[in-house]
Amino acid sequence: MKKEKISVGIIGFGIVGTGTARILLENKNVIRKRTGFDVVLKRVADLDIKRDRGIKVPNGILTTDARAVINDPEIDIVVELMGGIHPAKDFIIQAIQNKKHAVTANKALLATEGNDIFAEAHKNGVEIGFEASVAGGIPIIKVIREGLVANNILAIYGIINGTSNYILTKMTNEKVEFSDALKEAQRLGYAEADPTFDIEGIDTAHKLTILSSLAYGIPLSYGEVYKEGITKLTAQDIEFASELGYKMKLLAIAKSENGEIEMRVHPTMVPNEYLISKVDGVFNAIYVEGDAVGSTLYYGRGAGDMPTGSAVVADIVDIGRKIITGCVTSEFRIQDAGGYRIKKMEDIESMYYFRFSALDKPGVLSKISGILGNYNISIASVIQKGRRIGGSVPLVVLSHMARERDVLKAVKEIDDLPVVSDKTIFVRVEGKGE
Amino acid sequence: MKKEKISVGIIGFGIVGTGTARILLENKNVIRKRTGFDVVLKRVADLDIKRDRGIKVPNGILTTDARAVINDPEIDIVVELMGGIHPAKDFIIQAIQNKKHAVTANKALLATEGNDIFAEAHKNGVEIGFEASVAGGIPIIKVIREGLVANNILAIYGIINGTSNYILTKMTNEKVEFSDALKEAQRLGYAEADPTFDIEGIDTAHKLTILSSLAYGIPLSYGEVYKEGITKLTAQDIEFASELGYKMKLLAIAKSENGEIEMRVHPTMVPNEYLISKVDGVFNAIYVEGDAVGSTLYYGRGAGDMPTGSAVVADIVDIGRKIITGCVTSEFRIQDAGGYRIKKMEDIESMYYFRFSALDKPGVLSKISGILGNYNISIASVIQKGRRIGGSVPLVVLSHMARERDVLKAVKEIDDLPVVSDKTIFVRVEGKGE
Repeated sequence: MKKEKISVGIIGFGIVGTGTARILLENKNVIRKRTGFDVVLKRVADLDIKRDRGIKVPNGILTTDARAVINDPEIDIVVELMGGIHPAKDFIIQAIQNKKHAVTANKALLATEGNDIFAEAHKNGVEIGFEASVAGGIPIIKVIREGLVANNILAIYGIINGTSNYILTKMTNEKVEFSDALKEAQRLGYAEADPTFDIEGIDTAHKLTILSSLAYGIPLSYGEVYKEGITKLTAQDIEFASELGYKMKLLAIAKSENGEIEMRVHPTMVPNEYLISKVDGVFNAIYVEGDAVGSTLYYGRGAGDMPTGSAVVADIVDIGRKIITGCVTSEFRIQDAGGYRIKKMEDIESMYYFRFSALDKPGVLSKISGILGNYNISIASVIQKGRRIGGSVPLVVLSHMARERDVLKAVKEIDDLPVVSDKTIFVRVEGKGE
Repeated sequence: MKKEKISVGIIGFGIVGTGTARILLENKNVIRKRTGFDVVLKRVADLDIKRDRGIKVPNGILTTDARAVINDPEIDIVVELMGGIHPAKDFIIQAIQNKKHAVTANKALLATEGNDIFAEAHKNGVEIGFEASVAGGIPIIKVIREGLVANNILAIYGIINGTSNYILTKMTNEKVEFSDALKEAQRLGYAEADPTFDIEGIDTAHKLTILSSLAYGIPLSYGEVYKEGITKLTAQDIEFASELGYKMKLLAIAKSENGEIEMRVHPTMVPNEYLISKVDGVFNAIYVEGDAVGSTLYYGRGAGDMPTGSAVVADIVDIGRKIITGCVTSEFRIQDAGGYRIKKMEDIESMYYFRFSALDKPGVLSKISGILGNYNISIASVIQKGRRIGGSVPLVVLSHMARERDVLKAVKEIDDLPVVSDKTIFVRVEGKGE
C-alpha cells in the first residue's frame, strides 16, 4: 500500500524547534497542497516541556526522553535541533542505526563530526538533510548541490553570520566601536551572552566547511579553514574603508583554481558597487560564481525560528518525497573525490588595507613604503591625514595584489621600526584594483 | 543492471543549445564527479548544421531531422531549445508520447500551451524540466518548488527581462530617452530587431505565469496576467523617480492574500533602499516572500548561452538522478489546487506616481488635487518646478495607497480638464509610504 504520510519527531524544542513545529502545524495544508502528502509531527522531545512556547502542540506528543523519538517505530525522520556536539551526535547516530532519516540544523556538529555521520548514514542507506545548517531560510545547500550542479564552482563569498553582520552594520552606520555594537546586539538578542562563536568567525567557519565540502566534493575539513574574527576592527578602520569606497564585512571565502582550494574567514573590504556590500543587519547572502552560470547571489534571513524552520521543513519534504516514491538513496552524499589540495593561508593572494601607527616624523612614509616594496607589495593608494605634534597618526595604505606570506613579514618588520608606535592593522580587500 | 549513464538529445542548436552542448561536453567530468553518473550528448538537431558555433561536437551527432532525436530509442531526455510555439510543442508532445522526459527553456510555449504539455507528461509518466524558462541560470524554479515548499508564498517581485532592465538602467544612469537606450541594446545584441516581446512586458508575463503557477498551485494562466511595457517611460519620469528616492524597474509581481491572486507586469518605482533596486543592466533578480522564511532574493544572469545552459543541465541531472535511482514520478506537477480567485487589475491597490501636464495657470493644483480627493486618492508628496509662461509644466504627485479603478477614473477626469494639456503618465509605486 502506498505510503501517504510522513511522521516526524523533533529533538530540541528551542527557537528552531518551535519554529519547525509551528510550520508543520500551521502550514499543514499548504504543505499537503504543495506535495500531495501529509507531514505529521508525532513527537517533540526536550528536557523542558513545561515552558510556554506560544504554540499549541497536539496532546501527548511532548516528551522529556529523546529515545522516545529515536526508537519510535512509526517515526520516519528524526529532526535534531538541540545543538551542541554531545549528545546530539549520539542521538543522530542512533536514529540512523534505527534506519531513520535525519534532518539537522547543527553546523558545529556537521563541520566537526559530519564525516562520521555521513559515513554512518551511507552504511544504513538513509538520508541526512542539513539545509538549515547554513544561512537559515536561504536554500543555499540545494542551490549549490542541485541548482548549480552543471558548474565548476569557482568562488563562494558569504555573509553567513547575522550577529557579526549586525555589529559591522551598526559600526558602519552609527560610527560606534565594536564593544558598543556588541552590547546592543546582545540587548536585542542577536548575540549570545558568550558571543565567541559569532564574533571570532567560528560559526562562519563551520558553515564554510559545509559549503566547501558540497561545492568541491571534499570531506568536511573544519581544521583547514583559516579563521579571523571582527573583534580587532575599529570604527576608524571602517571609516577609512568607507572613504576608499568599501564596506567592511565578515566574509566566508572559498575558491578553487587548478585543484587548489582556499577556505578562509576574515573581515574583508568589499567594493560599494558589489551587491553583497549592501547586505546589512542580520541578513545573510551568499555570492556563488560558477564557470557556466557566472555570478549569482542568494539573500535572506540567516537565523530565527521561522526562516530556519522553513529550511528544516524543506528537508523533511525532500526526504519525504523520496520515501513516498520509494527511492531513498544515500548515494549523493558528501564524499572525497580526491585530486585536490588545500592552499595554505600564507600562500593566498589578495589586496590589503594597512593602517600603520606612524610617529609624525619626517621619512616615515618612505621607510614604510620601502619595506612594502622589498616584499613586492605595491601601493594603490595612501591616506595620511591630520598631524599630531609628537604623537602618532594613522597612515592608511591600500595595496595591489600581494602574497599573504610577504604581508606578514613586511608587517613584522614595519612594527619593529622605532617610528611605528603600535601594531599594524591589516584587512584583506576584494574586487576593484588590478 | 543498474543504469549508469543518461543519454540526451537536443533540438535547436542556437545560443542556448550551443551553451548546453558546451557544458555537457566541457564539464563532463565535473558532472560525473558531482552526480556519480555520466550524461552523454547523443544527438543535436537543427536545420542549420553547417554554421560554426565555436565548439567541437563528436562526429555524427548532428542531424537536420528533429525526429532523429525524438525517435531514438536510446535517448532518455529530449531537450527542446528551438523556441517558438510550433513545431516546438509538437516535438515535445511526440517525445513525451515516446516516453521520453523533456527539458525546455521555452517560456512562451509553457505559458501559453503548458497545461496541455504537463497533462500529456502526467499521462505518460514522464517529467518536464523547465528551470531554464525563467531567469536563466538562477535556480528560481527549484527554489520556489522545493526550497520554499514549507511556505505560503505571499509575494514575488521579479526583474526577469534583461533587455528591459538594460534599457531602464541606461535611461537612469545616462539620462537618455527610451528610443536611444533601445538602439544601444540592439547594437549590443541585448534586444532583438523586433523587441516587442521584451519591451512590452510579454516575455516577463510569460515567466510570471510560470512562477505564479508554481507558487500558488494554479494552472498556467497567461491570459490573466496584466501587462504594461516600458515604451512610454521618459527620461524625465525616471529623473523624478530618482528625486523621490526610487528606481524605475519593469517588475513582474505576484501576490496572494485570502485566496486572491494578483499577477501583473508593469513599470514600477522601487525604493532605493530595496536590494532589488540595485539590480542593474542585463541581470535578473527575484524577490520571494514566504510566510515562514520572510524576505529572500535570488540574483544572477537571466539569459545567455552558458547561464541558461547551466539551468538546462541542472534539469537534465535532476531527471537523470530519478532515472538512475528508478523513481521517476510526474506527480509533483503543476496542478489546479482550486480555491483561488484571480484579482482583476482594477481591484488592485498600490501607491501611484502621476505626472500631469498642467498649464501654468492659477488654480490648477487645486483642481487636480480636488479630483484626486474625490476618488479617495490622497497625496503623499508633490513636485512642481520651473514655470513656462503660457506653456505646460510637469506636476508630479506621489499618492498614498489607492485603488486602480479610482486612479483610472480620476486620470480620465483630469485629462479632460481644459488646464491639462497632455495625457497623464502614471506609474505604480512599491514600498515605503503607509
